[in-house]
Amino acid sequence: MKIQLEQLNYTIGDLRENSQKIISAIEQGKSKQVDLVVFSELALCGYIPHDMLEQKDFIDMVYEQIDIIASHCHEIAIILGSPWINDSEKGKKLFNAALFISDGQVQKVFKKTLLPTYDIFDDYRYFEPNTEFNLLEYKGEKIAVTICEDLWDKQEASYQFAKETLYSISPLQELSKHKPDYVINIAGSPFSYNQEDLRKQVLIQNAKQYNLPIIYVNQIGANTELIYDGGSRVINQDGEIVNQLSHFNEDSKVIDTEEIDSLPVIESKPVEKIEMIHNALVLGIRDFYHKMGFKTAIMGLSGGIDSALTAALVAEAIGGENTYGILMPSKYSSDHSIKDAVQLAKNLGMHYETISIQQSFESINTSMSEYFAGKEEDVTEENIQARLRGVILMAASNKDGHILVNTSNKSETAVGYTTLYGDMNGGFSVLGDVYKTDVFALSRFINRNRDIIPENSITKPPSAELRLGQKDEDSLPPYEILDGILFSYIEKKLSVTEIINAGYAAETVRFVVNLVNRNEHKRFQAPPILRVSSKAFGFGRRMPLIAKYLIK
Amino acid sequence: MKIQLEQLNYTIGDLRENSQKIISAIEQGKSKQVDLVVFSELALCGYIPHDMLEQKDFIDMVYEQIDIIASHCHEIAIILGSPWINDSEKGKKLFNAALFISDGQVQKVFKKTLLPTYDIFDDYRYFEPNTEFNLLEYKGEKIAVTICEDLWDKQEASYQFAKETLYSISPLQELSKHKPDYVINIAGSPFSYNQEDLRKQVLIQNAKQYNLPIIYVNQIGANTELIYDGGSRVINQDGEIVNQLSHFNEDSKVIDTEEIDSLPVIESKPVEKIEMIHNALVLGIRDFYHKMGFKTAIMGLSGGIDSALTAALVAEAIGGENTYGILMPSKYSSDHSIKDAVQLAKNLGMHYETISIQQSFESINTSMSEYFAGKEEDVTEENIQARLRGVILMAASNKDGHILVNTSNKSETAVGYTTLYGDMNGGFSVLGDVYKTDVFALSRFINRNRDIIPENSITKPPSAELRLGQKDEDSLPPYEILDGILFSYIEKKLSVTEIINAGYAAETVRFVVNLVNRNEHKRFQAPPILRVSSKAFGFGRRMPLIAKYLIK
Repeated sequence: MKIQLEQLNYTIGDLRENSQKIISAIEQGKSKQVDLVVFSELALCGYIPHDMLEQKDFIDMVYEQIDIIASHCHEIAIILGSPWINDSEKGKKLFNAALFISDGQVQKVFKKTLLPTYDIFDDYRYFEPNTEFNLLEYKGEKIAVTICEDLWDKQEASYQFAKETLYSISPLQELSKHKPDYVINIAGSPFSYNQEDLRKQVLIQNAKQYNLPIIYVNQIGANTELIYDGGSRVINQDGEIVNQLSHFNEDSKVIDTEEIDSLPVIESKPVEKIEMIHNALVLGIRDFYHKMGFKTAIMGLSGGIDSALTAALVAEAIGGENTYGILMPSKYSSDHSIKDAVQLAKNLGMHYETISIQQSFESINTSMSEYFAGKEEDVTEENIQARLRGVILMAASNKDGHILVNTSNKSETAVGYTTLYGDMNGGFSVLGDVYKTDVFALSRFINRNRDIIPENSITKPPSAELRLGQKDEDSLPPYEILDGILFSYIEKKLSVTEIINAGYAAETVRFVVNLVNRNEHKRFQAPPILRVSSKAFGFGRRMPLIAKYLIK
Repeated sequence: MKIQLEQLNYTIGDLRENSQKIISAIEQGKSKQVDLVVFSELALCGYIPHDMLEQKDFIDMVYEQIDIIASHCHEIAIILGSPWINDSEKGKKLFNAALFISDGQVQKVFKKTLLPTYDIFDDYRYFEPNTEFNLLEYKGEKIAVTICEDLWDKQEASYQFAKETLYSISPLQELSKHKPDYVINIAGSPFSYNQEDLRKQVLIQNAKQYNLPIIYVNQIGANTELIYDGGSRVINQDGEIVNQLSHFNEDSKVIDTEEIDSLPVIESKPVEKIEMIHNALVLGIRDFYHKMGFKTAIMGLSGGIDSALTAALVAEAIGGENTYGILMPSKYSSDHSIKDAVQLAKNLGMHYETISIQQSFESINTSMSEYFAGKEEDVTEENIQARLRGVILMAASNKDGHILVNTSNKSETAVGYTTLYGDMNGGFSVLGDVYKTDVFALSRFINRNRDIIPENSITKPPSAELRLGQKDEDSLPPYEILDGILFSYIEKKLSVTEIINAGYAAETVRFVVNLVNRNEHKRFQAPPILRVSSKAFGFGRRMPLIAKYLIK
């Protein structure tokens, strides 16, 4: 049987466009005499649609599009990820389903069994779990149809960053009792830089354990925070990869199920973490603009490494000609900062302008002089500068329709070294899930062929330049140490004691962890952050604001 | 048997303080020769602790405090809501448990069966559901111990705003097979103005159906967005209320289980919606400040009704002497606006100062004159004014440690008639879950005894005063119509067609619903909102930002 793996880029909620993409792939399948086209999890509506699943209008439109798609399914069959109404009186109103459609209608509905509720996942908020395990029989072949997490039932040490639950049921174990010829898994498996490895392990382990080939179809593309990297593939029953679709691009391949055994094994060369993050961020930025219908970006250029790297990534994603930078020096800005920012803009072919905040800063201070009378200068004055830059950037954004990009990194977001309504502004954050040490590595990667980010922006000591001679490391531990502690606490969820036992100074660990806990209120109002790690700030990390959570 | 119902105000994460409150209640129980003290759901750690439940440190501290509390349980027993570790290899790591503690240790653990995942609830993210149904036998009485949602297994028309799932299992049905004498339900049931009615119905219906008295213990107090209103009570087996604890206050009552049958029925007089919302907001504000360790509040006073009502509520919650207002007129501000704001401040005994934004506005415009050259005046200039007010308020907040209160209402938050990083600023939002029509009603309620909010602030046509002669109703439908459509779409989740069929003009419905959908990005960065309805913006309403969700 000829199966076409369709790895497409869907937009959440844009049912008509998603449907057109699906139909176009079906038509291509027909032209290639394909028997079955396989689409990814919730392909029709995009994944994760969140509470749109609770809107009646939305589900009505899903069913309308299923009918339209089904009308194209003659002399070809498809497996389509879509919500499906639970007709039972009890349980959640929907299933997360894989619809088998042929002869113009939905013939069989396979439902997701394991509904993740960790990190960014809320599947069980909307979907009733599957409890029946039947195979799809089509053209004489017996297929175990599963959905994403259904293969992730086993907890192993290597999964520790992925999740913490060992499910009580194994869908593949149940399905394997019916002696399938192979497994199809349709997935909505978001990118993180360690996910690709985990995913490969899960597929290989399942193929070996059940002695079954697996046809795995993931999606690509970003929907605000979540980035999907694709990497759809075919694994033979020995757990070897025999067909591989690309990462971060739409792709389509046709395989013959009778040939899986005899296909040569593909050597997959591992991609470096930094290169993966780079590719993910570029896709994330591009899809943010394209899917929202925006064309141009704007950001503040300080001459520092964070804004330089952000600008380089944005220019790569949507073009330097669509990228606008504003330099907003104050009396604390060093000459080289301005020079470095200008050089960067020229290297990227992006627009830039200079608007000083000095006069506005003085005006605010004058109008508040009575209020401030007799009070010491403190962080207030630093914040006013950051916020005036925010006002200017948003004014430029409002006037010209450029969408503001936030340039804060994960390290400073974690410890709250950011100004709410100032440098925290932006339609979305590019580096909010990238630690400062990786910001350096990514900048080196950007410069791998030629100098794009000025060397000086990379090598000078990081500074907010909000007061004279200010340097990040005056008030924070060195970034290698800071990031090590943050990673242990946020990604690995280690306790303070465990982090200290790993070799960090007790006082530093407590200082950093307290800063993280005390700054939840700032992150509550942060823009959406492109997720590249297994634990990003935002939807996947839900912390109460009241956290009188005293460190022992 | 003598049972003490303890309705206390817990702080999320403040395990030591919660533990001390619990111990103090146990000691009081001992002095009254009580047999059993009952505390509410997750009393020990506060509810909802969110992802703190995933931190090892946090669970360690929970167990430490359980030991300390248990050491006080001699010659008295308690039922304590707390997380409890799941020792099984499979399933979630924790249970949401009711610990029966006596003779200095945990004797028996009852686990929550129904784990809500709708609206603000994420119970299944952390907890494994209970599957065993046993009674507590103590002092010769047989008790069915249940936790909150365990009583909410039935879906009825009247529940429509509460949830949409009909559970497949009924804990009380299972427990009733063992012939209990009565039911204890420990709850963490958050306030919304229709929740009290639903709750009463659920208790009465269960008591009648199983012919069992119910002892219901809820908590009070607010933890950022969520407000708990208490209302613990005892229901006899005929579904009549025979003992009632207060709403919005800590309370404690002792009952004798042998007397439940003979206690006189309490006539509960229903409280009006507006009075309930008022009481909830005052508690929400007070607890926000007290639990965060803040003393003073600051806000912008425009002379309009939203800031006037906010100021009145804040002054009531934390005292006029701790409430600061800043008037920030521009050339578009009317004289009466300033007069009304000053009068309000005097009526409330709050501090106020005037800081003009005119000079800063001109400075920004001057510094951006090249950027703006040749471009039309538009919403940019309006937003600059709103954002400069934000800069001034945050500067005052930073300088003096007053926490900024957001004054936006639910109607404008819904349709995006707010400025991000401007009037959307604030540590939390008081009115973000209160529609404009209810803002008027609440203001009348505030003025029920004497004029606190100037009559003119209530009666003048609402305006943002960001350009000459601007009025809200120039660009929005009248508030009665707007709020009617918003309530239908947000709270009732009706489809556009259903809202039109309810009698609203089709064009207006589409206009409003499109505004709601298109402004998710602003709400993404909004401050936490005190929740008083069954569907507030924030954690309980999760919408994707990419929502090319075209209205038919």
